[in-house]
Amino acid sequence: MVGEGLFAPITTTDALLEATGSAAWLAALLDAEAALARAQADEGVIPRVAADAIAAACRPDRFDVDELGRAARGGGNPVIPLVTALGNAVGAVAEPWVHHGATSQDILDTAAVLVARRSLVLVRADLDGLADACATLADRHRHTTMAGRTLLQHALPTTFGLKAAGWLGGTLDATALLDRADADLAAQLGGAVGTLASLGADGPAVAARFAAHLELAEPTLPWHTARQRLAALASALAIVAGTAAKISGDVALLAQTEVAEAAEPAAAGRGGSSAMPHKRNPVGAAAVSSAARRAAALVPVVLGALVAEHERALGGWQAEWETVTELLALAGGAAARTHETVAGLEVDADAMAANLARTGGVALAERISLALAPTLGRSAAQAAVAAAARRSRGGGSFADELRADPDVAAVVGHSIDALLDPASYLGANDVWIGRALAAHHQHQAQRLTSRANSRGGR
Amino acid sequence: MVGEGLFAPITTTDALLEATGSAAWLAALLDAEAALARAQADEGVIPRVAADAIAAACRPDRFDVDELGRAARGGGNPVIPLVTALGNAVGAVAEPWVHHGATSQDILDTAAVLVARRSLVLVRADLDGLADACATLADRHRHTTMAGRTLLQHALPTTFGLKAAGWLGGTLDATALLDRADADLAAQLGGAVGTLASLGADGPAVAARFAAHLELAEPTLPWHTARQRLAALASALAIVAGTAAKISGDVALLAQTEVAEAAEPAAAGRGGSSAMPHKRNPVGAAAVSSAARRAAALVPVVLGALVAEHERALGGWQAEWETVTELLALAGGAAARTHETVAGLEVDADAMAANLARTGGVALAERISLALAPTLGRSAAQAAVAAAARRSRGGGSFADELRADPDVAAVVGHSIDALLDPASYLGANDVWIGRALAAHHQHQAQRLTSRANSRGGR
Amino acid sequence: MVGEGLFAPITTTDALLEATGSAAWLAALLDAEAALARAQADEGVIPRVAADAIAAACRPDRFDVDELGRAARGGGNPVIPLVTALGNAVGAVAEPWVHHGATSQDILDTAAVLVARRSLVLVRADLDGLADACATLADRHRHTTMAGRTLLQHALPTTFGLKAAGWLGGTLDATALLDRADADLAAQLGGAVGTLASLGADGPAVAARFAAHLELAEPTLPWHTARQRLAALASALAIVAGTAAKISGDVALLAQTEVAEAAEPAAAGRGGSSAMPHKRNPVGAAAVSSAARRAAALVPVVLGALVAEHERALGGWQAEWETVTELLALAGGAAARTHETVAGLEVDADAMAANLARTGGVALAERISLALAPTLGRSAAQAAVAAAARRSRGGGSFADELRADPDVAAVVGHSIDALLDPASYLGANDVWIGRALAAHHQHQAQRLTSRANSRGGR
Amino acid sequence: MVGEGLFAPITTTDALLEATGSAAWLAALLDAEAALARAQADEGVIPRVAADAIAAACRPDRFDVDELGRAARGGGNPVIPLVTALGNAVGAVAEPWVHHGATSQDILDTAAVLVARRSLVLVRADLDGLADACATLADRHRHTTMAGRTLLQHALPTTFGLKAAGWLGGTLDATALLDRADADLAAQLGGAVGTLASLGADGPAVAARFAAHLELAEPTLPWHTARQRLAALASALAIVAGTAAKISGDVALLAQTEVAEAAEPAAAGRGGSSAMPHKRNPVGAAAVSSAARRAAALVPVVLGALVAEHERALGGWQAEWETVTELLALAGGAAARTHETVAGLEVDADAMAANLARTGGVALAERISLALAPTLGRSAAQAAVAAAARRSRGGGSFADELRADPDVAAVVGHSIDALLDPASYLGANDVWIGRALAAHHQHQAQRLTSRANSRGGR
Repeated sequence: MVGEGLFAPITTTDALLEATGSAAWLAALLDAEAALARAQADEGVIPRVAADAIAAACRPDRFDVDELGRAARGGGNPVIPLVTALGNAVGAVAEPWVHHGATSQDILDTAAVLVARRSLVLVRADLDGLADACATLADRHRHTTMAGRTLLQHALPTTFGLKAAGWLGGTLDATALLDRADADLAAQLGGAVGTLASLGADGPAVAARFAAHLELAEPTLPWHTARQRLAALASALAIVAGTAAKISGDVALLAQTEVAEAAEPAAAGRGGSSAMPHKRNPVGAAAVSSAARRAAALVPVVLGALVAEHERALGGWQAEWETVTELLALAGGAAARTHETVAGLEVDADAMAANLARTGGVALAERISLALAPTLGRSAAQAAVAAAARRSRGGGSFADELRADPDVAAVVGHSIDALLDPASYLGANDVWIGRALAAHHQHQAQRLTSRANSRGGR
Repeated sequence: MVGEGLFAPITTTDALLEATGSAAWLAALLDAEAALARAQADEGVIPRVAADAIAAACRPDRFDVDELGRAARGGGNPVIPLVTALGNAVGAVAEPWVHHGATSQDILDTAAVLVARRSLVLVRADLDGLADACATLADRHRHTTMAGRTLLQHALPTTFGLKAAGWLGGTLDATALLDRADADLAAQLGGAVGTLASLGADGPAVAARFAAHLELAEPTLPWHTARQRLAALASALAIVAGTAAKISGDVALLAQTEVAEAAEPAAAGRGGSSAMPHKRNPVGAAAVSSAARRAAALVPVVLGALVAEHERALGGWQAEWETVTELLALAGGAAARTHETVAGLEVDADAMAANLARTGGVALAERISLALAPTLGRSAAQAAVAAAARRSRGGGSFADELRADPDVAAVVGHSIDALLDPASYLGANDVWIGRALAAHHQHQAQRLTSRANSRGGR
Repeated sequence: MVGEGLFAPITTTDALLEATGSAAWLAALLDAEAALARAQADEGVIPRVAADAIAAACRPDRFDVDELGRAARGGGNPVIPLVTALGNAVGAVAEPWVHHGATSQDILDTAAVLVARRSLVLVRADLDGLADACATLADRHRHTTMAGRTLLQHALPTTFGLKAAGWLGGTLDATALLDRADADLAAQLGGAVGTLASLGADGPAVAARFAAHLELAEPTLPWHTARQRLAALASALAIVAGTAAKISGDVALLAQTEVAEAAEPAAAGRGGSSAMPHKRNPVGAAAVSSAARRAAALVPVVLGALVAEHERALGGWQAEWETVTELLALAGGAAARTHETVAGLEVDADAMAANLARTGGVALAERISLALAPTLGRSAAQAAVAAAARRSRGGGSFADELRADPDVAAVVGHSIDALLDPASYLGANDVWIGRALAAHHQHQAQRLTSRANSRGGR
Repeated sequence: MVGEGLFAPITTTDALLEATGSAAWLAALLDAEAALARAQADEGVIPRVAADAIAAACRPDRFDVDELGRAARGGGNPVIPLVTALGNAVGAVAEPWVHHGATSQDILDTAAVLVARRSLVLVRADLDGLADACATLADRHRHTTMAGRTLLQHALPTTFGLKAAGWLGGTLDATALLDRADADLAAQLGGAVGTLASLGADGPAVAARFAAHLELAEPTLPWHTARQRLAALASALAIVAGTAAKISGDVALLAQTEVAEAAEPAAAGRGGSSAMPHKRNPVGAAAVSSAARRAAALVPVVLGALVAEHERALGGWQAEWETVTELLALAGGAAARTHETVAGLEVDADAMAANLARTGGVALAERISLALAPTLGRSAAQAAVAAAARRSRGGGSFADELRADPDVAAVVGHSIDALLDPASYLGANDVWIGRALAAHHQHQAQRLTSRANSRGGR
């Protein structure tokens, strides 16, 4: 069971708390030790019987995570006490071969990669679900006009479909970055200083087997102090969280009492306030914003770990453990909660139309100016339109004020109402939405293919 | 018991894990709810019997932290389910008065302050211990000459006492910053939007009583979206961690195999490597470096929370909870481990002298140049000295090479050996050490006074 | 003249660009060299005539900043070429006494403090102006009711005066933190490794004179690798920027097209869009947000510099120069622009009232619930009120729906309109505003006193 | 000419100061405006004559960068005054077509991409040079044994060639990440809210032409508020800086007075100290460390900008401009300076051997233990070896102490000297170096191909 405390469940999912928790780390550490023993038996470096005993002993339920954590303080990492405990567990024959030739960092780095890879399955599932949900909205709301807003002010009309297509585009880009970072992850096996000296000439073959047992890529050479892979992963995770926070943040802005164009899905006990029944707090957005802020701040810790001293870092490496773990939980939580928000989003197309109409068509002033410019010149055109807009704030309609200006009326008098119709001033809206959906379909197809491959391949 | 997982014990202490854990948070939340009820009974806002029932129910062992955490997901914070659970626990008479007039943020912010204040007692104890240990070394090693190093190169001689005095000065400064931030912490009570509207005219009096019950300062006005206090606390905590990392880092540099002037205290299972018996890993320094890196990165999260929307922030506030908690654990852990390191530091004064002598006195080239300058001019003096230094790399002694230059010999020939004696080129060493120790004595005296006061005062 | 490039003027003021620019740094470096020479002449360490020549040569217009910058590359800091250039400028007699006994870091750190102190005069002036402007609004709008908003949703009523009082409180707190950090700034003089060895017994006296000439505090001991002062300054500056961004951000939210309760001051070319005449972009808020984001991110650089190796850091110290400079410009720019925004703020009290009324009194649901609770019990009361609120979304008024519930009507039927009047549900509004204004008056009085003192004292 | 101030030249190159300076930005902004006009003429949206006039006027020397910067304050970005100035410059016929259909962000984002792409040519050149220099060292020093160091302590032997191969591997990985980020950069053209409404049905075709004129990729849809591309670029740049700082940092550690195994290249005025002729400061390492620290801290600013409000961000976008600019300069500077350091590195193989020998072979204790383990059991073997190591600290040689233990002597007595020879305990050293060099050769070949293609293709 997940013991997640008071706060963690707010920003992440139970599945990710489990996938990134100490028990999952312990399992990954043991997987690495077992794979090491098997790889060495494969190459004849250690007896097969020893490898079998070690692999059999590598069961998380035989070890006490909290005890290992406390024992880790002395040597500065949890692999040291784990190796001792594993040695005690395997019996005298296998004991000398436990952790043979490896250094603590080999096991910890490999476990970090395993924890990451396993968590990324969850993160990616929510990203895929989020993309699907965005695509659905983009398709459904192609023609739902609403105010486009820049610096929080109405600018020109857009559609809610295009907004969702933009969310989709960002989600696909973030997913692609995460996929690349995932694909680059590699096993780690170098021994104390990266030479695998105690394995003699067998080192490279053992390292290859080790990676294969764990279904991880084999690196060109050990990466104890070449941490580019983890830095790229950390960045991609923070990008995922930020992408989710953009989407959730837009929802929170649309959900403002005065705007009321969208709302997070209603659910029992969700975002309501017993004392204030009118409230529907965007609690998803708050949680995602919180996750994204924390994720972004963690990235420099991993970037700083690039500066690793000689053959093993003093401080930078050690700072990665909890930081990468937390990044996985936060990015995945942000993706999950935003997926949930978008999939169940309440959209009020009438409110969108009403808010857009609220400025009486002034949002289309640009269009009038452009229609006038060839005749009046750009500056004069803009001045005339701006004057009409100003006058309309006094109460008149913008259309009437435009018609009241003889210069304007002479050029566009007959077409003012058509020109002020937002539905006909959406430019590339359909093209862009079409492109975003096409990119999504392609991504979906790749997903199916790679899933089929992975079923076939194992 | 503390369930701290695989990694947390490496960077912090059991006491801080306990003081900052979910159970401690729960206790603080309940203390705030109890104080609220008592304050309202004091002012006649709620019945005394209800307050007594509420206070009696505010016992952490009656609530399940993990269950509350999971239930917190819906409303976005753990106070919402806690209030429900507390309402269920107090009986029908008191139930309407649970959490009366308060908003979740009142309870969470006040609890954060309580958690911080309680943790800071631990942090400060280790900072005081660290200062004492630095002072002891500063005093003991006033005359232990060693190489002063700039950009990791030998520069001029200094003493280990002065180095320790510098550590002491930094520790006292960091402690003063933390004390100020602690003193500024205040209770929070404002109700939904800061007006305490549901308490009518009683609001300010209740708020004052509330703060008094918790022995916290009362703020000028509610600080739901004025987070300067927490930002200053976060900064001070990161400064504490950075101060500790400077000291621990110096020890790690001194402990390098080639330098070997100091070592972290030896202890069973501490820093040793079974495979490499010659190693004495500076595991304390690694842990402290890791803590300081992570602490520094967290500060912008709290700074970002300053930008709180209207009457309650969406995302920034929520990001503070785990961030401030972690900062307390990391800063305190860094202070504790550095305290341990300095208190038990192994100092090798002979190695210090030997390393200083290794450059054959060239470290005192500046002194020779200065002695020559009035006669030869600064440039000529420096050139002559540099030439001698260069020649001495070929194997001769620097002193001999200086004497071999007739211009040099004419001016300082008789005093070269005296000029090259590091012990007589320490300038303000004794004055600075004296000042640092005096500042420390003053700080110690204040500690005693304030401890006596706090014993008397409660 | 200020050559500030394409972007810098957007986030800061001309005055701060000047106060933090390379020319200002050069002037500060020269002030430090001149003060050093004078201090040494005072103590008889160097000839008075040499000190006079050095001081006379320390005129910024005699040096080429860009040339010094390029020459700084070799030795890694600009003091090295500056000392050479200064030596060339003073003539043969004074040349040996230029920079006597000092190390580059003495001059650079002292100059950093001088640049900071001079810039802080500007920052503080805008913070004081901002506080004054907030106080004016708090006083003027004590009774201007508006929606209090939490998580961007209407919650309970508040007043614009209380919102401004909250801005004021944050500004005063940030100013106090900055004042403390400023007061702690100290001169730096320690020589190569902090011993001032080349000054023999005169070191401490020279250091005291040096600080006095520059009107800076004298530190307990040199702080080459004890950077707590700068870390506290950096934090305080980021807190100032964040405080400004909270205020500017609230204005931007209030200025949203659908909210329209406030707007940044109109000015020629300010925030307007020629193509979109209806827009009044909150460009001040955008600039301040940008400044605050960048400022917060810079703080860890200065925190990281706490971990300084031995007697001079390799990398951390060097990273401070541009970081602290930029923090001064960003924090000051944020304060200035927010000062301008608040001083000229357009407030639309009618819009505030209209938006508050928009939810038909549902924002006061809490008040009805509390009035019902003693009779119906809290849960039943809240349920009844929530049901009425829900029904009112269908079009009826909340008041009517409340009256339609016989249980509700029986208890509060006659007083529903009074209970739904926001102006009578403001709780501690007046008390809090009064307290914030009192704190401001006290701060103003201190300002006058300290200004009078500083006039008298020099 | 580059006016770079006092500090910037220390952390970056003149070429990058030029490529990232305000003049380069202005040129890129004008390139974007010119390409826009050309693209619209291509599609018949505006008259060819107008496009020609606009393109002709887009010459940086016709505009005053500082004046534009100051004028940018009002509207919050420099494109607004630039469009006005450009309109004035082109004459009445073309004036209405200046910036037609575009929004400021189109031009600024496209210019950012152009500035980035042009700067990346410089960054990549230094990364390639750095890789070449690392490869040379890896090849040359395949057999140069030295101490492998973990947590700054001697661990097992390694070779300087393998250390350089590790540097090479990191450099290649960082280059690959930067290449990917570069390849993803795309032009930006969407108009006020991303619909290109004012271009009607021509929008997508114009956008395609626009990208083509600038030799930039065309995005799926406008990315005004989908900033994943820039976030990935920022991360890659910080990874480049961190990769450089790892290498430079290793050099600084090797250059310590007591270690003295390597030194930065000597050059006039480089790293020397006139007062301390024995010093050879690793000023390159200090500059690179400073650059990497600052670069890592800047990444969260760009990550934070992912959370962009609606159709144009308020604050996040604006914070990118100087941040991305600075990241380019810092990453490129770090690469350049590290390239210089590694290309001219002074390596002292004798010192490496001597330092390794200093511990008398104890660094090979692991090897003895492994040889003993099959006979004595792992624990007993390690205990015997540790005891011998301990005794050898008293003055005896490790080999003699091993021989003095009869249990040890019985098993490995005859082979102790061979076992203690570091040159025969290097494991996969040659394989790893071979692999790193092969990866480098492949990268070099790709470089040549892509260079040939780019010559042929244009």
